[in-house]
Amino acid sequence: MNFASDNVTGACPEVLQALVAANEGSAMPYGNDPLTASVEQKLIALFGCDLKAFPVATGTACNALALACLTPSYGAIYCHAEAHINVDECGAPELMTGGAKLVPLQGEAGKLTPEIVEAAIHGAGEVHHVQPAVLSLTNETEAGTLYRPEEIAALAAVARRHGLKVHLDGARFANAVAALGCSPAELTWRAGVDVLSFGATKNGCLCAEAVVFFDKAAAAAFPYHRKRAGHLFSKMRMISAQLAGYFEGEVWLRNARHANRLAGRLAEGLAALPGCRLLHPAEANEVFVEVPALAIERLRTAGFQFYEWAPGRLRLVCAWNTSEADVAAFLDTTADALSGAAAG
Amino acid sequence: MNFASDNVTGACPEVLQALVAANEGSAMPYGNDPLTASVEQKLIALFGCDLKAFPVATGTACNALALACLTPSYGAIYCHAEAHINVDECGAPELMTGGAKLVPLQGEAGKLTPEIVEAAIHGAGEVHHVQPAVLSLTNETEAGTLYRPEEIAALAAVARRHGLKVHLDGARFANAVAALGCSPAELTWRAGVDVLSFGATKNGCLCAEAVVFFDKAAAAAFPYHRKRAGHLFSKMRMISAQLAGYFEGEVWLRNARHANRLAGRLAEGLAALPGCRLLHPAEANEVFVEVPALAIERLRTAGFQFYEWAPGRLRLVCAWNTSEADVAAFLDTTADALSGAAAG
Amino acid sequence: MNFASDNVTGACPEVLQALVAANEGSAMPYGNDPLTASVEQKLIALFGCDLKAFPVATGTACNALALACLTPSYGAIYCHAEAHINVDECGAPELMTGGAKLVPLQGEAGKLTPEIVEAAIHGAGEVHHVQPAVLSLTNETEAGTLYRPEEIAALAAVARRHGLKVHLDGARFANAVAALGCSPAELTWRAGVDVLSFGATKNGCLCAEAVVFFDKAAAAAFPYHRKRAGHLFSKMRMISAQLAGYFEGEVWLRNARHANRLAGRLAEGLAALPGCRLLHPAEANEVFVEVPALAIERLRTAGFQFYEWAPGRLRLVCAWNTSEADVAAFLDTTADALSGAAAG
Amino acid sequence: MNFASDNVTGACPEVLQALVAANEGSAMPYGNDPLTASVEQKLIALFGCDLKAFPVATGTACNALALACLTPSYGAIYCHAEAHINVDECGAPELMTGGAKLVPLQGEAGKLTPEIVEAAIHGAGEVHHVQPAVLSLTNETEAGTLYRPEEIAALAAVARRHGLKVHLDGARFANAVAALGCSPAELTWRAGVDVLSFGATKNGCLCAEAVVFFDKAAAAAFPYHRKRAGHLFSKMRMISAQLAGYFEGEVWLRNARHANRLAGRLAEGLAALPGCRLLHPAEANEVFVEVPALAIERLRTAGFQFYEWAPGRLRLVCAWNTSEADVAAFLDTTADALSGAAAG
Repeated sequence: MNFASDNVTGACPEVLQALVAANEGSAMPYGNDPLTASVEQKLIALFGCDLKAFPVATGTACNALALACLTPSYGAIYCHAEAHINVDECGAPELMTGGAKLVPLQGEAGKLTPEIVEAAIHGAGEVHHVQPAVLSLTNETEAGTLYRPEEIAALAAVARRHGLKVHLDGARFANAVAALGCSPAELTWRAGVDVLSFGATKNGCLCAEAVVFFDKAAAAAFPYHRKRAGHLFSKMRMISAQLAGYFEGEVWLRNARHANRLAGRLAEGLAALPGCRLLHPAEANEVFVEVPALAIERLRTAGFQFYEWAPGRLRLVCAWNTSEADVAAFLDTTADALSGAAAG
Repeated sequence: MNFASDNVTGACPEVLQALVAANEGSAMPYGNDPLTASVEQKLIALFGCDLKAFPVATGTACNALALACLTPSYGAIYCHAEAHINVDECGAPELMTGGAKLVPLQGEAGKLTPEIVEAAIHGAGEVHHVQPAVLSLTNETEAGTLYRPEEIAALAAVARRHGLKVHLDGARFANAVAALGCSPAELTWRAGVDVLSFGATKNGCLCAEAVVFFDKAAAAAFPYHRKRAGHLFSKMRMISAQLAGYFEGEVWLRNARHANRLAGRLAEGLAALPGCRLLHPAEANEVFVEVPALAIERLRTAGFQFYEWAPGRLRLVCAWNTSEADVAAFLDTTADALSGAAAG
Repeated sequence: MNFASDNVTGACPEVLQALVAANEGSAMPYGNDPLTASVEQKLIALFGCDLKAFPVATGTACNALALACLTPSYGAIYCHAEAHINVDECGAPELMTGGAKLVPLQGEAGKLTPEIVEAAIHGAGEVHHVQPAVLSLTNETEAGTLYRPEEIAALAAVARRHGLKVHLDGARFANAVAALGCSPAELTWRAGVDVLSFGATKNGCLCAEAVVFFDKAAAAAFPYHRKRAGHLFSKMRMISAQLAGYFEGEVWLRNARHANRLAGRLAEGLAALPGCRLLHPAEANEVFVEVPALAIERLRTAGFQFYEWAPGRLRLVCAWNTSEADVAAFLDTTADALSGAAAG
Repeated sequence: MNFASDNVTGACPEVLQALVAANEGSAMPYGNDPLTASVEQKLIALFGCDLKAFPVATGTACNALALACLTPSYGAIYCHAEAHINVDECGAPELMTGGAKLVPLQGEAGKLTPEIVEAAIHGAGEVHHVQPAVLSLTNETEAGTLYRPEEIAALAAVARRHGLKVHLDGARFANAVAALGCSPAELTWRAGVDVLSFGATKNGCLCAEAVVFFDKAAAAAFPYHRKRAGHLFSKMRMISAQLAGYFEGEVWLRNARHANRLAGRLAEGLAALPGCRLLHPAEANEVFVEVPALAIERLRTAGFQFYEWAPGRLRLVCAWNTSEADVAAFLDTTADALSGAAAG
């Protein structure tokens, strides 16, 4: 009954099992173990290109360390005003980049357009301004919407024209791939993405993400940034093991598809109720919806958990283990509350 | 047969089991879960005083984040020249403190004395100098030696007199407590320690340490520093669970006693061999020893792993799962090599 | 004929003379000289309150060092999107605060309102967000407009209610005081300002500003921040001398009044011309005006210098030494161009 | 009678005159003025090579900004333990480099040797260690001694072999050149120096130094680092004017020769007195000398100023305007005190 976030879950069985198995015996520390090497190999296969990949334990670290490799300390990172890196990381990108500036841009439904980005980039070569360095996108966006491959490509083209690198915050990248039915490659390097924060924690791991450098040259400083941020794990295999379990047999896609499907059902059900209104298209595993206050109260009383980010406006998130029953119960409780209201 | 470090091990059974158990069901993210709260309670009981404690995933993060709470960006952190924070963290303290300076001090066998510290502290109030802010000690030291409670107290008294805070890097704190037979309190707050990096990863966990603030006021900024360093785990319970398992039923002490005992045996055995010489007293779970080159070669051939930090000089580390058989084999192989040499 | 900025000027005679006089003989370095002490005394008299004041050589340093004393590294600094600290300092505040985040706010004519600020402040105590720390205002604003004392007070009241400190970027503070006819105290500490960047370079000095701490406690760390930013001048008297000359006999006000008066004349003249339109009220020494392209071309040909910040949109700045003749010539040239256009 | 430092002086006449002359009229701000361009040209002529040069107002800024261009944030800067950058800049290099670590090395008389540097450099490619990036030397050293061109070359060769850049802190570079009678080129780029902090403040200016990049590629980021450190002066011509006056007609060499000559006389005179002992060879304009306590007291009573850096140990500095009479008086007073002591 917890729709607050996909991070309230534990690990899925395959991931936990991989972790437990990896615990046996000795292994060279600091990532010099076979499991860690195997994760990079899996990602090379998954993306169909050469790349450098590094396991990291949190999404914030993933983003901030990736950005540290893409911008000088006097750089500008263009991103949506609602981007996680801008509002939910307590300044981690600023810390790890040595003080680069995030330039927040407005855009509908959590998305940027080439026009918005084109209009924002400025100041290159002017010493008074931070220097345009990175365009950071999020897919699945913070509004639960999606960029299609051609949208990413159009945005990346603007970035490229101005000499910027492109970072993709993929905390829910699996949900985006699953929903769009395209390949990981189409959503990333083929569209012009240089570095991907490939999330896994929310979608079935405990603490595992991967920074994936399609631009291998940009990865040169990563190991040092990671170490000095305290993110080089001595027993790295326990992060890598999670990723190994996650990428094995398409567990990552299966988990994401499940979450997306239930979120779709939830969105559809809510949209049909009187007084409820979807605020953004629910394209992956998050539903942003306006719900009458009395229904919200009834849901709370019934024990449902969710995030009311503004009065009457909810974010509902489905995860790899959200049950059909919970979704049905949520919809029923809401419908009940609203029909009672209509009757009264 | 791996004496390279105590970080080549997996988790001990109790810790792994706690982790697996914690994976069940939902839990509020970011440390707002009951397990995380229970860890602080366990530490309050263990140290017999009020305190603030925060689970952290790596030792480097533990140290750097603790220091970030103790010094301004223009502060000086006095430490042994061989301190892990000075030589093995790629500048993590500098990053997280915003550029504070580590002032390396020389001292025998990895230890500082009150005289050394007294002579080093200077420049308070002089704007040209970084401002004396922290004394950081390590116990078990980087040379495998130990500070006794009264030694810590004498050092802390110097620090206190000059207005410095005292940080203790306890990556192998369990080994120190186990070896000295004193209470955790005697080695920390009763001796004047303000903040402890309480290590657990090396001694039976996978990725778990605790920053323990005996000076609770100093903890105020910790949550923000942790978040912006990417060290606030959404599924925090999986770090906390490790610590819960670690502190349950004295697992931590049992593990440390085992490692210490085997290291003692190793040291004793080596010291008795011709051409071998202990470089520092082996007081806990590390042995620093000079071994003839031909024995080193023989050991390598036999499949033993260890760290030769200078030609002919080895660091051997015993862990919670080092076997008696491995120690015996190491000694036999060395003895064989050397007797062959003597015979030859 | 240079209306590009007030920073194209040299020093006014009184300031240059003070500097030359101060060059004689020896003086204790690093601000331990009588002239530097005298500047603080002059400011105490000028503001009618106790305060701490520090000479600084550039406006960017002035702002960034002031902010470094007001926010933790994980803090948020709310400011107008057009604020100099946000767009023209290449990340200096981020550098000197250790990575604090500037939160840019939209507002008409370069000004913020209490409503805008109230709506923006959020996240206090939430570990994912940078922590609200400072409200930074600019007066004279970057749009050439002015905050009245009661406007500052209303904004500061919002800040205070949320526990924020108030910084005032007064790069053209003299122009604001001169234009409003109020006392320096009314525009600062009486209205709730904690720290003022009191500009002097643009208004008759060569490289001299003063950071003025009405909140004396906030000044404690200033000397260290200044030193580590390389802004503690050994021959400080040469900065202080400029300020001494500047504050002597109301030179600063005289200079500002002159600049304001000529800017007023320029604005009035331009507003009366066909096709010209003031973009903001020209309340002090800057005029933001829309001018037809052919007039702009004619002005350039005639040798006038100015800043065309967008096509057809000019910023014209008058300084302490702008001549009446130049203003008249500018207006005549524009009028000629436009009447020719009308005729043609 | 002030031997405390060469920074207690004002500007020499030529420099002051250049500054006053430069004050006339308008000039493009931020270094886009002809005077600033001329300074670079003068330096190109002086060093006989292509280079990039930037006026900076303080020595600390000069060093820290130069280093910011030479090391990544996870770099190591090797320097003498007594180096100004290590002990007298309150962490400025750490701030501007984003947290690089200064590695202090011991060496006789303020000097490093190739052996010392060779033994210190380590950890390249090891992720736990800060990465060797820069060797920073000081000439005239902090002990008043000098490196000869061949000594610089030998040190630079070690640095080069390990891929390090070479920075020279030349706060008293003029004194070194004057004393050694070699060319500026021989002491810098011909010997392998990549970047020079060319001091001028102490030797006849008010606030003017130049960062000189012989490695022009390393200068690319300098303008941004300078701006974000608040060191881009709007009225740059007033810094550049000082340098123009300084380099005109060998004023800089004349000033340095004068200071060196008087320091030599002082050293010679003191060395001949009973109980006095030179602590280092007085090779340029600084004298480090042991003087009996009663003479020190007598000197103080007589109004002499100097720096007693340890009990009985004085640093005496001669400047461009130190008078022969003052030196004679200092020697006479000391001799008197000591002969009285001998008599008594």
